[in-house]
Amino acid sequence: MLHFDTDYMEGAHPEVMRRLVETNMEQTPGYGTDAYTAHARELILRACGLTDGMVHFLVGGTQTNATVIDALLSHHEGVLAAESAHINVHEAGAVEATGHKVLVLPSHEGKLSAGEVEDYISRFYRDETCGHMVAPGMVYISHPTEYGTLYTLDELEGLARVCAGAGIPLYLDGARLGYGLAAGDTDVTLEDVARLCDVFYIGGTKVGALFGEAVVCSRPSLLPHFFTLVKQHGALLAKGRLLGVQFETLFADGLYFRIGSHAIRLALKLKQAFVAKGYRLYIDSPTNQQFVCLPNEVIDRLSAHVSFELWGARGEKESVVRFVTGWATRDEDVDRLMAWI
Amino acid sequence: MLHFDTDYMEGAHPEVMRRLVETNMEQTPGYGTDAYTAHARELILRACGLTDGMVHFLVGGTQTNATVIDALLSHHEGVLAAESAHINVHEAGAVEATGHKVLVLPSHEGKLSAGEVEDYISRFYRDETCGHMVAPGMVYISHPTEYGTLYTLDELEGLARVCAGAGIPLYLDGARLGYGLAAGDTDVTLEDVARLCDVFYIGGTKVGALFGEAVVCSRPSLLPHFFTLVKQHGALLAKGRLLGVQFETLFADGLYFRIGSHAIRLALKLKQAFVAKGYRLYIDSPTNQQFVCLPNEVIDRLSAHVSFELWGARGEKESVVRFVTGWATRDEDVDRLMAWI
Amino acid sequence: MLHFDTDYMEGAHPEVMRRLVETNMEQTPGYGTDAYTAHARELILRACGLTDGMVHFLVGGTQTNATVIDALLSHHEGVLAAESAHINVHEAGAVEATGHKVLVLPSHEGKLSAGEVEDYISRFYRDETCGHMVAPGMVYISHPTEYGTLYTLDELEGLARVCAGAGIPLYLDGARLGYGLAAGDTDVTLEDVARLCDVFYIGGTKVGALFGEAVVCSRPSLLPHFFTLVKQHGALLAKGRLLGVQFETLFADGLYFRIGSHAIRLALKLKQAFVAKGYRLYIDSPTNQQFVCLPNEVIDRLSAHVSFELWGARGEKESVVRFVTGWATRDEDVDRLMAWI
Amino acid sequence: MLHFDTDYMEGAHPEVMRRLVETNMEQTPGYGTDAYTAHARELILRACGLTDGMVHFLVGGTQTNATVIDALLSHHEGVLAAESAHINVHEAGAVEATGHKVLVLPSHEGKLSAGEVEDYISRFYRDETCGHMVAPGMVYISHPTEYGTLYTLDELEGLARVCAGAGIPLYLDGARLGYGLAAGDTDVTLEDVARLCDVFYIGGTKVGALFGEAVVCSRPSLLPHFFTLVKQHGALLAKGRLLGVQFETLFADGLYFRIGSHAIRLALKLKQAFVAKGYRLYIDSPTNQQFVCLPNEVIDRLSAHVSFELWGARGEKESVVRFVTGWATRDEDVDRLMAWI
Repeated sequence: MLHFDTDYMEGAHPEVMRRLVETNMEQTPGYGTDAYTAHARELILRACGLTDGMVHFLVGGTQTNATVIDALLSHHEGVLAAESAHINVHEAGAVEATGHKVLVLPSHEGKLSAGEVEDYISRFYRDETCGHMVAPGMVYISHPTEYGTLYTLDELEGLARVCAGAGIPLYLDGARLGYGLAAGDTDVTLEDVARLCDVFYIGGTKVGALFGEAVVCSRPSLLPHFFTLVKQHGALLAKGRLLGVQFETLFADGLYFRIGSHAIRLALKLKQAFVAKGYRLYIDSPTNQQFVCLPNEVIDRLSAHVSFELWGARGEKESVVRFVTGWATRDEDVDRLMAWI
Repeated sequence: MLHFDTDYMEGAHPEVMRRLVETNMEQTPGYGTDAYTAHARELILRACGLTDGMVHFLVGGTQTNATVIDALLSHHEGVLAAESAHINVHEAGAVEATGHKVLVLPSHEGKLSAGEVEDYISRFYRDETCGHMVAPGMVYISHPTEYGTLYTLDELEGLARVCAGAGIPLYLDGARLGYGLAAGDTDVTLEDVARLCDVFYIGGTKVGALFGEAVVCSRPSLLPHFFTLVKQHGALLAKGRLLGVQFETLFADGLYFRIGSHAIRLALKLKQAFVAKGYRLYIDSPTNQQFVCLPNEVIDRLSAHVSFELWGARGEKESVVRFVTGWATRDEDVDRLMAWI
Repeated sequence: MLHFDTDYMEGAHPEVMRRLVETNMEQTPGYGTDAYTAHARELILRACGLTDGMVHFLVGGTQTNATVIDALLSHHEGVLAAESAHINVHEAGAVEATGHKVLVLPSHEGKLSAGEVEDYISRFYRDETCGHMVAPGMVYISHPTEYGTLYTLDELEGLARVCAGAGIPLYLDGARLGYGLAAGDTDVTLEDVARLCDVFYIGGTKVGALFGEAVVCSRPSLLPHFFTLVKQHGALLAKGRLLGVQFETLFADGLYFRIGSHAIRLALKLKQAFVAKGYRLYIDSPTNQQFVCLPNEVIDRLSAHVSFELWGARGEKESVVRFVTGWATRDEDVDRLMAWI
Repeated sequence: MLHFDTDYMEGAHPEVMRRLVETNMEQTPGYGTDAYTAHARELILRACGLTDGMVHFLVGGTQTNATVIDALLSHHEGVLAAESAHINVHEAGAVEATGHKVLVLPSHEGKLSAGEVEDYISRFYRDETCGHMVAPGMVYISHPTEYGTLYTLDELEGLARVCAGAGIPLYLDGARLGYGLAAGDTDVTLEDVARLCDVFYIGGTKVGALFGEAVVCSRPSLLPHFFTLVKQHGALLAKGRLLGVQFETLFADGLYFRIGSHAIRLALKLKQAFVAKGYRLYIDSPTNQQFVCLPNEVIDRLSAHVSFELWGARGEKESVVRFVTGWATRDEDVDRLMAWI
């Protein structure tokens, strides 16, 4: 049985695992005050092209989103996001549970349009009743999006400009950032992300770590008392050095980027195979998530040999399915899958 | 200067005011434990055709919605509502502030479609990832809606059936219920509302009271410890009898319904005048809120003599405006306005 | 039957009621944007000796406390209060419902000690684990307290000094402020309160109004977007002018202060009667709430003629009871009660 | 430099680490739906003497407490806890952030008294104003407590009886449960905990795991929709099998209990050394946390060679310090420390 369900089916990249074992019996202070975490922080800032800034390590994506968003918003504000945004759909209402509204905008294959964001904000402040409404207090985007798509540098700059104009922060959910940065024809680099986003996180869970997300903020004054908020959200890992060791390993010599490239190569190979067989792509994704429309009988036949995810509810005749590659996907697995489709 | 901005520009109906003055120096226990409140409760249950049930009196609409919705939902649930719903747009995120998501469905001139509600719930439970999503825990409707429109009895029965089938409560925001019940060709009575909705509120603020909304629940077990929740939401009036006296007056001899009829008659007179002049109705409302598309120069000209509300942002050439009648609107005011349009 | 249960058993002071009736049919814009509210705001600032500042009118005490405290605190902060504080005991967890902890300090007959507040804050910041704890973000006091006691000017200045030193606001709950200001030997004036407290509210509900509390803030920058927060908390009255008219009446010619003096005179007369009869005072209150220890048989005997409140649970032989006077208490009522005790 | 600061300074027990490495490249479904998690669940139920019940694995203690407490309480309820309880002091207000009040009772060396709990509940319901107060909705205890102390079986049965009588759940925070169960003269077994507590968690983070806490509930109907709540709280680990593998290892052949015994033996050896030197114990703890009063000069001298935690603020002449042993503490470390004291 092959598994293409998602990119968090294995443990950690062997190199990460090796370092966790090597450092296992060392004694360090807790809560991220250790030297590994300090070093990882430094490596990440350097990779981001930042001379200064804040890096905090949290355990998982939903807790990271909820904590950052809660920290960035005032009581009267909500977060602008695409209708398809993970925070709007698949985080069990974690943002609302902290008291904030997700202000929904149209999703363009998972992406927000800078023009539509600008228009929303402008209409909001022209509305005489806006004092009775939730103010747009920040913008949330994911990159890659939930559909595997990517913003162009131009689009990202557009969003940053609109946010700066409105005086609100731009936050990027980078759960799969490593796969986005490694995409073939993206013109967005990690430095661009760090330059254009007020806050973002570099996903580890899906990109080689056992778990862990690195929140980067080039303007730490945006997130005062963040440590206490992380604790309050139950997102502070006692053995914080576990996060430090992992991100140190991922960023010491470019492992994070190599992992991305590997998964992208296999994902595109798979995509081409689907296209060659005449199947319709649900979305033309340049990253490690591939969405294909398959006849239900093909789905049923494949399911005997390989597991993958149904995207939304099953259709009458055909359904959208998702195949995901990752750091652990092997060439031979993709070859076998290609033979079956 | 004439005012058609809204239906809460005056104090209370003179009869209500008279009773408040008459009872002013009486001493009663607080928090709604007095005899006036008990009597008002009884009159309302009778008017609703309920032999049993719970009636609680709160001060305003937003607090009533937030309190009832918070009380009805479990932590993992959200409230289904039309995109245009007051709770989704104009209550400053009060529902989210209590930790719950508003799950948005299309608005059909302010109304939900029972079929779309059913479809949403059905798709939700067929989605394999539904454990990661906010469950639809109740349905919110307003009647009249924010656009002045009304559900037919058939539509209301459809929603009630879908809710019952899904095992979730149907809640009706009746901020302007009195105007809805008095509409010319509605086939929905107060008894119907009480029979079909698990919880609803009879709006007083906009229909003759100084302030006050009466929450009615035919199945009190849905709202355990509601008194304490009302207190926690800051919605418990110390001098609860003020609400009792007002609703007693409104429901003792049909005043609530007479008020409704009066406002409807004047609203329709006004509507016909707009139509006769060739202006386009933005929405064909049968109740006391009338929405018309007016050229901006007409708006500017009228604004010298009469105040009314711009609906949304001002358009380039024409804009949508709202004219509202109420218990206090006089025939002569409508006549003067008609002369100007 | 006489009633000394509390000071919110009647409606409003006749003068207030008269003005509500007189203005009843006037049309004004909603939500406190009317001229009455503007005038009341001006009168209150003047009475407070403030040339500038913010005044907002809310409906009731619990909603006022929850809204102000939520507005003043950051996510990682809590509110310091006496164990006996209304927000800690009798507001159904309204503060916690908005996500903030009440940090409890000893109650000295309802009062906080400035020294203990200072000590708490100082110990907090010397504790190496304080990043894991709720930071003291403001101080809440009531004046008069829940036990009818009053801060001296010296005590209030001490608290203000400690708060200023710690850079946190001092908030005063003045539900019964009118009775406190009118106490015989208090050296605290309304100007003092306005000068020493960053935010406070002047209670109307218990001091002559039908309902209403006036939040005063000499440094409006402490409460940005307060209007929207009031709405979000369900505390924004549609017909805001009802609050404006009432507070205008109370502050136009000193009615608020005359009401206070009347109730204090009767409360002290009653206190002296209890003392003369040999009953022990539970607390020596200088304001309109009097707490006496009465044998249970006396309580039972009195209860046939007069209602009053049991303070806490009933004791084995004697219990603490509370007698309250107010603007509406009559000399003859106190005389009759005195004849029975 | 020796470290006795706490029991989470190392990674995981070598056996746990070995299993994580062995299973690292296996592919499993996420979110705890894998076979390792199922097996760990089974082993834990067996160790608890439960034939049926629910086991959920979360990442850390604060998130576990906040999630369970939020799940168990209704909106109008709070959690009874000792003043010294971790949830009341060191979790940054995580419980309040979910809207619930911590109802504080006296701490008896970290423990609650069943009699005082009973008395609180009984007084609460006899208070006529209890509808305005936060209802006691559950009881929180920690075992061992924050002071290393333990409930006797008799005390635990007393609490269980009081809770059952009041119809509210008893929840036990077992962050260091392994050390408590291994204490020399405890008469409380894991079966007792499972029998007497409605919900509890078996701490992994401090007892041999990299991280992880196992929530056990013998009456799953108490925690409906718990999976979604865990997600909403950001406490759902994507690679849930990491928790399964770890707890499987800890409970497969008694490793969890051996770890406990090891740490207890060394802690008592250390305690005796302090006593032998004439130092006063701050608390007579039978578990792996030892609290000693040391003169400040001794603290300063020791600090050159060994790190440990100051408990609270530093005193004028002497201060309370804490020494903690764990699964990773070596006999030789304790011997060296003993030579210095």
